[in-house]
Amino acid sequence: MIYVFTGNGKGKTTAAVGTGIRAVGAGLKVLMVQFMKIKELSSEYNVLSKLENFDIESFGRKGFYLPKEELEKRPELEKKGFKPFSDIDFRLAQEGIEFVKNCVFREKYDLYILDEICVALHYRLVDENILKKLLIEYRGKADFILTGRYCPDWLIEISDLATEMKEIKHPFKKGIPAKKGIDY
Amino acid sequence: MIYVFTGNGKGKTTAAVGTGIRAVGAGLKVLMVQFMKIKELSSEYNVLSKLENFDIESFGRKGFYLPKEELEKRPELEKKGFKPFSDIDFRLAQEGIEFVKNCVFREKYDLYILDEICVALHYRLVDENILKKLLIEYRGKADFILTGRYCPDWLIEISDLATEMKEIKHPFKKGIPAKKGIDY
Repeated sequence: MIYVFTGNGKGKTTAAVGTGIRAVGAGLKVLMVQFMKIKELSSEYNVLSKLENFDIESFGRKGFYLPKEELEKRPELEKKGFKPFSDIDFRLAQEGIEFVKNCVFREKYDLYILDEICVALHYRLVDENILKKLLIEYRGKADFILTGRYCPDWLIEISDLATEMKEIKHPFKKGIPAKKGIDY
Repeated sequence: MIYVFTGNGKGKTTAAVGTGIRAVGAGLKVLMVQFMKIKELSSEYNVLSKLENFDIESFGRKGFYLPKEELEKRPELEKKGFKPFSDIDFRLAQEGIEFVKNCVFREKYDLYILDEICVALHYRLVDENILKKLLIEYRGKADFILTGRYCPDWLIEISDLATEMKEIKHPFKKGIPAKKGIDY
């Protein structure tokens, strides 16, 4: 089965983590692969890394990265610390998808959480054809949860379940900063 | 802070659980209180019950319950095993909210997850004035996550963050049954 958590609201990664916990509780083996993130920077890593049958890998680097065109259009983002993607980011995403493929081929896990992969797809860090082929070929043998904003239409189409996490209200807009243990 | 996960889509309870895991990973103490549910029936309980600093209580009973009027309007639900609410359901929800109040007054936890409380509010199993008073009085001392469909407007208004989990696609509609480890 293929599950998608997308949209601009809070709760996509946490819903994937919560579903992963549910799967482990039912005796399944879970792999969470994070794109464009560093696993050690999220508080949940301290708990998840100690769980049996829940493995996490991440394929990102410190800081926030966006395509050059995006930064040229919105120069204020550079002042906020965003930097343009470089070859490193493409290589990391590539390694991430290769890692997933290897685990899927060897049938190592029952549930694969590909966190933020929709964002990586949107910015073309991940080749959509490679992902599409993998999902279609293995959807009967394992479950996949894909998260992130900007989920492409083809992924919604091939999914079995898709939820849009829609922002109704968000404290960052009121100028309240992100809170450790809740937001990261 | 007050967080709301509502809407008809999948991911509300799991997002609350994932946020709870994140909070525990940041050194916070979490209490999850489930309304209209039995904690032992969900697979995640097997994992969460073993975690330090994550406590769960539930105040529901086996089976699915709805108000009498709801069942009279939709008799097909009775065939699906739904039964009308009785005094037991009101008493259980009452006990649940009293339990939360006691913990909040004694400042036992940093984060309170009130799972399915929006549904309990909708069916008037929980007195909205008691909940409103508690949230407004203690929002500065602890964080609260409230989940469930049918979130009332006043709760969105007093919340700091609200996400609508909006169903885009759902396998149950295609006749695919709920899957252990993913759906419960």
